[in-house]
Amino acid sequence: MVSSMSTSPYKQLEQEFKKLHAFRGAMSVLRWDAAVMMPRGSAEVRGEQLAALETEHHTMLTAPRISRLLDRAQANTQGLQDWQVANLREMRRQRDHAIATPVSLVSRLAKTVSRAEVCWLEARAQGRFELFAPMLTEVVHLVRDKAALLGQALNLAPYDALVDEFSPGITTADIDAMFKALSRRLPSLIREAIVAQETRPIRPLTGKFPFAKQRSLIVEVMKQVGFPFDRGRLDESEHPFTEGVPGDIRVTTRLDPNDPFTGLLGALHETGHAMYDLGLPQDWRDQPVGRDRGMALEESQSLLTEMIVCRSRPFVRYMQPLLAKHFGVGGPEWDVENIYARLTRVQRSLIRVDADELTYPLHIMLRYEVEKHLLSGELAVRDLPQAWNDGMEDRLGIRPTNDTEGCLQDVHWAVGSFGYFPSYALGAVIAGQLYESLRNDVPALDEQLAHGEFSGLLGWLREHVHGLGAKVPVQDLLRAATGKALSAAAFIRYVEAKYLETAASEAA
Amino acid sequence: MVSSMSTSPYKQLEQEFKKLHAFRGAMSVLRWDAAVMMPRGSAEVRGEQLAALETEHHTMLTAPRISRLLDRAQANTQGLQDWQVANLREMRRQRDHAIATPVSLVSRLAKTVSRAEVCWLEARAQGRFELFAPMLTEVVHLVRDKAALLGQALNLAPYDALVDEFSPGITTADIDAMFKALSRRLPSLIREAIVAQETRPIRPLTGKFPFAKQRSLIVEVMKQVGFPFDRGRLDESEHPFTEGVPGDIRVTTRLDPNDPFTGLLGALHETGHAMYDLGLPQDWRDQPVGRDRGMALEESQSLLTEMIVCRSRPFVRYMQPLLAKHFGVGGPEWDVENIYARLTRVQRSLIRVDADELTYPLHIMLRYEVEKHLLSGELAVRDLPQAWNDGMEDRLGIRPTNDTEGCLQDVHWAVGSFGYFPSYALGAVIAGQLYESLRNDVPALDEQLAHGEFSGLLGWLREHVHGLGAKVPVQDLLRAATGKALSAAAFIRYVEAKYLETAASEAA
Repeated sequence: MVSSMSTSPYKQLEQEFKKLHAFRGAMSVLRWDAAVMMPRGSAEVRGEQLAALETEHHTMLTAPRISRLLDRAQANTQGLQDWQVANLREMRRQRDHAIATPVSLVSRLAKTVSRAEVCWLEARAQGRFELFAPMLTEVVHLVRDKAALLGQALNLAPYDALVDEFSPGITTADIDAMFKALSRRLPSLIREAIVAQETRPIRPLTGKFPFAKQRSLIVEVMKQVGFPFDRGRLDESEHPFTEGVPGDIRVTTRLDPNDPFTGLLGALHETGHAMYDLGLPQDWRDQPVGRDRGMALEESQSLLTEMIVCRSRPFVRYMQPLLAKHFGVGGPEWDVENIYARLTRVQRSLIRVDADELTYPLHIMLRYEVEKHLLSGELAVRDLPQAWNDGMEDRLGIRPTNDTEGCLQDVHWAVGSFGYFPSYALGAVIAGQLYESLRNDVPALDEQLAHGEFSGLLGWLREHVHGLGAKVPVQDLLRAATGKALSAAAFIRYVEAKYLETAASEAA
Repeated sequence: MVSSMSTSPYKQLEQEFKKLHAFRGAMSVLRWDAAVMMPRGSAEVRGEQLAALETEHHTMLTAPRISRLLDRAQANTQGLQDWQVANLREMRRQRDHAIATPVSLVSRLAKTVSRAEVCWLEARAQGRFELFAPMLTEVVHLVRDKAALLGQALNLAPYDALVDEFSPGITTADIDAMFKALSRRLPSLIREAIVAQETRPIRPLTGKFPFAKQRSLIVEVMKQVGFPFDRGRLDESEHPFTEGVPGDIRVTTRLDPNDPFTGLLGALHETGHAMYDLGLPQDWRDQPVGRDRGMALEESQSLLTEMIVCRSRPFVRYMQPLLAKHFGVGGPEWDVENIYARLTRVQRSLIRVDADELTYPLHIMLRYEVEKHLLSGELAVRDLPQAWNDGMEDRLGIRPTNDTEGCLQDVHWAVGSFGYFPSYALGAVIAGQLYESLRNDVPALDEQLAHGEFSGLLGWLREHVHGLGAKVPVQDLLRAATGKALSAAAFIRYVEAKYLETAASEAA
């Protein structure tokens, strides 16, 4: 325990946020355990444990003492280093977000979404949206209240305030500009890519892929990327995710007995998150400034790793002999071109999580518009299925035949995560933008990747992204790393080159 | 959140202790994870998480608000039910223990033992006590201070105050009386048992015991006992333990490739703990009165299960066909008598955790005397190895040749657990006492066990032990269950009958 007499307000805040960091780490392990290890019947007990820790975390963060210390520390920042000033800003940001919503609303929302998630699971299983509609209506009302309060407190429009929770520094204007650029090019590009790939039919895979061998392959590749198995784990869960903190980071994937790429690419996607977290500044590791710079940047790291780096010819060249080694497979269906074609197949489909790089942003655009309209009241909950199906038909030319493959497919709204979906598209676009600069700065990148060498990639990312933590706003980070503010242009150049195999394409 | 205006002080306390219960549950999962799942390099991160939760738990428990509520609730207990009055008593007990030791001492002790444990591991590996002596001296000093403060606050002698933390309601006088009775009979009984068993040499085991098959066997037996795998887990760890809370209870064991009984009996020992926890009153489950009645009673349940129930002829009769089924073994070395002889072998040995039922209490007696003398100052830390080795020679007639198999074998003192050791011997004695009454009340017990039927056993234990939680003091519980206060007489009758196969022995 530090004595408050001998310690500066700033140092006292560091102590308090160190404690909050430990709480968040503990909650993360409990969530990991719930998804990977916990017996099915223990959900209620775990819910109580997480709620108690969450409530206490909220109480500590919003305590009057923190406000007083923040004011006193900010009144005199002389003697603080740059990162400490940024830390103070991030501390206040966390406090402002926490204090904007009254505990009663937080608690009501928590209880509602815990019921809503169960209701959603049931409705999805039955494909009957009407079972879920009343709960979703409740959630929308509560999130609308929360957005209004957050917006007032942060001086942002309500939807922007929700986005700010997940991706600070990104506004609706940024998102609209991005989607405008994407919707101008992607629909035609999808058509062109599908035509182009028709000249290269994919040979179906042969062979057997026992889970134990899939695991060995994944561990070998993750080690090669640099994932530290002495301070991290790989496990399996229904949906891949990353939890934990640097020092104990935990990645999961889902294995498919008929397709070795599902598990491997899922794990590599999560490894992208993990390498970001592991590259955060070690000296600030228990402070707000030492955290990631929001979900848009988090997604950029997983998508850069999975979609751009690992679904590339150089990576397939590295991976191909490993497939032979672990599964004993061979033949023309296992040559580099066939694997690469398989991993970059473009297809209009109904399910977001199975979508390819080109159609994915259109899935997100639909959700973005629908959730904004739900919150503003322009769209009534009962009209959601119709709006969804029309939106899918408009954008992708296909129409769900039931709500399970339509508006019931994602958990996000059931758990109250409005304002989160844009992060996925932002992540893709940021990944494209970073990748363009990365290729310029590391000319040997493809050759390195083809030899399973990830140091050039990670060195660049550490310098320009990971190592900054939350010190600078995301737009500043992008300008420093790429010379430009957030823009979809580089992403569009990247997908054009990749899917049309134009002159700018990577050398075969 | 409950409003304090409309809610009675007692009900407000229930809310507060519900939160503390959730915190303890969370810490238990984090400890389980640390022992079973956590990567080796993550110990420091986990230490910080547990320390943050522990400190917050302590702060909440010792908050002035709790004291005020306790006083107000106790001023008017009209309208409270019996169990609620007992709950109030247990709440105060927890608060009194927590508040007696200043945070600064708690924190200093926590830091010291965390270094001491590392130092102990190293010293034990090298067999060099002198490496550990300085750290142990520090620990002894801090525990002495803590015992003095606890004793003052609880109006107990210092060592009694330490015992009270683990086994409330048990005094040094009880322990002394027990050891006096045991030391009068056990040494001669050990000699007689060893003579008696010489007429029945044990045939060595044959067969192979792959871990997967051992696990299947253990799961089958645990299911039969009633362990709920939908709200519990079985895993492996270096030392068997039980963590979690009813609703999510987690048992571990250690598997030995050459001996299927190590893993099975270890798991059954822990299942004894788990069944106690699972039998605690569900309605009080998040309240202090709904917890177990201390470590002596906890150990009585694990020892009753492992030593008395499972190392018995009826249980071996149930188990024997399962061994054949899971391992495909057979032949005379696998007949009931040979297995039973193996599981009840008496042998003077140096290591406590490998000791049999007869020699085990003598191991504990040595530790009890040594730790009291260390705390009182009658024994200097530097003289511990000599005192230990002399004590072993006195009591068991064997002398360690190094400190690894001597005074460095247990972790307890390194982590500051003084006053804990007596629980093991108390547990054995209480198990014997409960068993005598159980046999009288459930005459068909042996026959049930031989058929793998545990309902008679568990029904009796639920009624007389598990279902009471912490409602009554342990001595009252024993008097109600057995008609007598704590006494070693029944235990001695039990071991005499078992190891000398006297008339009182269970029918062959």
